[in-house]
Order: sequence, then C-alpha cells, then structure tokens
Amino acid sequence: MKKIKIGIMGYGNLGKSVELGICQNKDMELAGIFVRRDPATIKTYSEDVPVYHVDDAKKMVNQIDVMILCGGSMSDLPVQGPLYASMFNTVDAYDTHAKIPQYFVSVNKNAIEAGKVSIISIGWDPGVFSLNRLFGEVILPEGNTYTFWGKGISQGHSDAIRRVQGVKDAKQYTIPLEKAIEAVRKGEMPELSTREKHKRVCYVVVEEGADKIKIEHEIKTMPNYFADYDTEVYFISEEELNQNHSGLPHGGLVIRYGKTGEKQEHNHAIEYRLNLESNPDFTANVLLAYARAAFRLNQEGGSGAKTILDIPPAYLSPKSGEELRKYII
Amino acid sequence: MKKIKIGIMGYGNLGKSVELGICQNKDMELAGIFVRRDPATIKTYSEDVPVYHVDDAKKMVNQIDVMILCGGSMSDLPVQGPLYASMFNTVDAYDTHAKIPQYFVSVNKNAIEAGKVSIISIGWDPGVFSLNRLFGEVILPEGNTYTFWGKGISQGHSDAIRRVQGVKDAKQYTIPLEKAIEAVRKGEMPELSTREKHKRVCYVVVEEGADKIKIEHEIKTMPNYFADYDTEVYFISEEELNQNHSGLPHGGLVIRYGKTGEKQEHNHAIEYRLNLESNPDFTANVLLAYARAAFRLNQEGGSGAKTILDIPPAYLSPKSGEELRKYII
Repeated sequence: MKKIKIGIMGYGNLGKSVELGICQNKDMELAGIFVRRDPATIKTYSEDVPVYHVDDAKKMVNQIDVMILCGGSMSDLPVQGPLYASMFNTVDAYDTHAKIPQYFVSVNKNAIEAGKVSIISIGWDPGVFSLNRLFGEVILPEGNTYTFWGKGISQGHSDAIRRVQGVKDAKQYTIPLEKAIEAVRKGEMPELSTREKHKRVCYVVVEEGADKIKIEHEIKTMPNYFADYDTEVYFISEEELNQNHSGLPHGGLVIRYGKTGEKQEHNHAIEYRLNLESNPDFTANVLLAYARAAFRLNQEGGSGAKTILDIPPAYLSPKSGEELRKYII
Repeated sequence: MKKIKIGIMGYGNLGKSVELGICQNKDMELAGIFVRRDPATIKTYSEDVPVYHVDDAKKMVNQIDVMILCGGSMSDLPVQGPLYASMFNTVDAYDTHAKIPQYFVSVNKNAIEAGKVSIISIGWDPGVFSLNRLFGEVILPEGNTYTFWGKGISQGHSDAIRRVQGVKDAKQYTIPLEKAIEAVRKGEMPELSTREKHKRVCYVVVEEGADKIKIEHEIKTMPNYFADYDTEVYFISEEELNQNHSGLPHGGLVIRYGKTGEKQEHNHAIEYRLNLESNPDFTANVLLAYARAAFRLNQEGGSGAKTILDIPPAYLSPKSGEELRKYII
C-alpha cells in the first residue's frame, strides 16, 4: 500500500505532536517538516526526518499529499492557510471562532483554484465539539446546548498573565463549575452567565521584590481574559510551577438537553466528554484523521475548503466501507 | 420553503414517535402513515393525518420524499428495506448487528436501480454509538473502545421472559456495572467478559399459582438471553409493573481510552453518554435528522444504501453551511 505523505508546517508543540501521531497511523509517513528557523537547528523525535526551510515548500508540491499547518491562529494561519491551500491539500486547527467564516472564504478560493482540499478548524473545539453541538441540535431540536471547557491549561490566558509587569512565569487553568454542570444534567435548562460556567485558577511566579497585591489585582481585573470570571491567583515558586504545572492537559464537555413526547414529557441528555492529558497530542491526532479524509476526497476529485461538518466520517478511517459495516456499526 | 414530505411505514412505538418528532422539525411534514391493519382502526396523535394501507404505498411514489421504515428488524425490515428502497428514499433502524453487511447489500442493489437513497441502521446503537466507535478509533488509534448499554428496558429480553410458562408480564432492565465503567475510566484497559460489563434485572408478574422458583430458574439459565449474566429476578404485582415500569427509558455509554506521546505517557478518554427517557422518541428523532440527509443527497443526484458513517454531518441540519460555520463551529 502506498502511504499518505504528510508534511508538517511549523514545529512547535502541535507540530511535534503531529510527528508522534504519524507513527500511530500505519497508512501515513512523514515526508518533511518545514520551519522558519534554520533547519539545521531543529531536533526531531525521529532521526531520519528531513527538515526544510518554509521557502522550500513550494518546490515540494509533488512530494507531499497533505500539509498539516501547525502555526498559530493569531498571525500564522491567516497567511499560511490561503497560501498553502494553493499548493497542497491542507488541514489546520484554526481556532479563532468568530473569524472562521472569513477564513473559510479565503482558503476556499485558493483551494478551488488549485484543485486541492483544505479542511479547516480541526481539533476538539473547534472540531469534535462542533460536531457534537450539531448532532445535539439536529437530534433534539427542542433543547439547549452547553459547552464546558476544562479542567485544562489555557495557553492564551497563561500568556496574558506573563505580560503583567513583575510576572516571571504563569499557568492558567480553566475549570468548569460542577454546580453548573449538575444543573444542566438535572434538566433545569439554566441560562448561565460566563461567571456561572467556569472559574479561572492562576499559578504565578513573580520576579524578586514584585508587588504581589498589585499583580493579583491586575490579573483579576484584566478585561476579556479575567474580569468576567471568578479568578483565583496563587503565587508559587518556579520550581513548583515546573514540577506540577508543566503539562498541557485539557478537555471539556458538550451537553445537549432536550425534550420529546406528546406533552414534552420525555427528557433526554447527550453528553460528550473529553479528558486529555496532552491537548497538542489529541489535536494532532484529530488533524491526522482529517488529513486522511482530505487526501481521499481530493483523490476522488474534490476541492475547496471544508469544515469538520462536511466530511463523511467513513473517510477518516483506513478501513473499507465493508469492514466498517462489519466491525464498527 | 417546500417542506420534506415524510411517510411512516408501520405505526407501533417507533412510528408513533416519528409522528411526534416531525412536529419538532419545521422543514418537514407528515404525508401519510402506512399500516397492515385496517387504516380506519388507527388513532393518530394529529387529527388530520391520512392513514393508508401498506398496499397503497406503491401508488404514492411521487407524494412522499422519504419513507421512514418503522418495522421490526427480525421479520419486517429484511423484506421492507429492499422493497421500499426500490420506490422511495428510505431511512430505517435495522439493528441486527451481525446481519447489517448483507442487509446493506440487498438494500443497496434496489436503491441504486431506483435512483433513491436509503440510509440504514440509524438510531443510537447502531447509530450515533457506531459513529462514536469510529471517531474513537481514528482519533486514538492506540487504545480500546468500550460500549455499555443502560440503564434501560430491553424489549427483546422482556419478550423472552414473557414466553416462560406461568409469566403474565415482565420488564427487563439492562444495567451497566459501575465497577467496569470505573476500571475503563481509570485507564486500566481491562478485558471485560459479558458478565463483568452488565447485569440484568427482571420484574416479573406471574399467573396465579405459578411456581416462582421454577420460573426464576428458567429465566436465569435461559441461553443467549440470561445465562451469561448475573441476573436478578423480582416478582411484583401487575399494578406495580404498570405503575413503575411502563416507560421505555434507555441509554448507555461509549468510551474510547487511548495513549499518545513519545513513550505513551499521555492518557486520553473520550466518553459519549446517552440518558434517554424514551428510547423510541430518541430513535425517531435520529431517523428524522437522517431523513433530511437522505432527501438532500438524493436531490443532488445521490443513490444507493448508506450508513451513518457515509453521511456528511452538515446534511443533517436545515441550516446552510454558512450558518453552521457562524453558529455551530
């Protein structure tokens, strides 16, 4: 069997996890890693992986079946998404929810022109959580959907704390409030404010002599990031931070609660829960399953931008339809 | 907007739930109910629903967009599935897992010849549980999948008890064992026997003067149904059975547990849980979402048998791709 040749664009946490994830998929092989730094400085997990400068990607259009874009959503993907859609089948984890519609349009245009497939915004949210929000509302049209995130590390919020003066390092956990989850499960269909759904817990290492009271106040009142939440701030040593908070766990929960029956007398709950010890590893593995789908759709003549909602699930599996009907259904 | 015209073939528990479910979907209307009995004897929920004899279905090929087949998997669907696939787009809940491959083949042949779409084996298991088994194994290739059913009423097992001599009525609950679920959640990746996953609890009403000891023994040793399980039998009055055990609740849980990382050091759990107060209502609502997909796929020129794994999720929603990208993803 000819393996699907995967390229990795960007070699941060996510790119590294994609490299590891490829080993779990027997029908894939890693064709190259592309970086902006000097390729000679990159240390990969496997010894024999070719590392190239990003500028060389355009010369490798025929050597890569699917390019996985592992850059950030803030500044990398808005450029790289449309750019590489015009050269390769691509998959990315673009996660700026509010801008997905316009990102889709710009990727779609180039992917159609190039005759390639680009599957955007893949991962867990957006991603498999989006799928579950869709399934919830189509199966139980009369109901409410609730998404909870955590317990897990939010990179964006950790970064925001690090920008506060006097802070040396920090990690921020998003934690869903059990009381809110219980109210949803009980069928109370509550209207929940931001503060009622999650709290934020911050572990902060400060520079010597820093004003902790001022730092705590600055964090807790930070607009967009913390002001709308009950936020807890704990000052700890650098050693403790590295020992107890160096992982990237995450997860969460999508609940659809709905009613059926002649007099709405039957209650139903659909609950989808993720418990992830490594956010980038899990995201990478979802990207790889959709890379397989992108490749197969393109082989069949498909092109253009797609989201997770557009992909027939069978395309994610290396098994044939016949095998799936026998063993999965 | 032109509504999707739905036909209901068979008016038992599932057919009745489909009638109610249509009211929750603004883009659908009920075009007719088809029964083997005298249509004049049928009392429907809505007053103005036309009820026809099954023999009239073939005359209504142009009046029905999707026929929902609500018969049983044992004897109705093996005949009705292929038969109506040659006249209508169809959706059914065929649930004899071992025979799905051959059922697919026979429906597929007729659906292709007729230029219609037939989506088979829709509901929760087979159905959305199958989907989650697929997603689990493609996202976490190195892991195990566990399916638990219940707590819920099994119709087949309740029927089996009713066939025991001296039994007047009975209800059987399938109950997953918490100990097994906990072992899976903890990541022990256990190998679980049938007996270790579920127990069966039976509420039995006996004829006057019946030999309860004999009945209990006969139930507990019944091959295929109870012999492989720890089974509890409780004798109760007919009144108590009707008061406390007349509903059709069900549900269950699909868990995928898997590992990632350079040294398999990261554990992940994906858990999909259903808690349903009415098994037929929920199944009906899943059938209706897939009826929408069958209609749309056929409008685009599609034909043949499909399973839940073949359908792009966006086809389940009345919303446009643009709306879904804006509000769901």
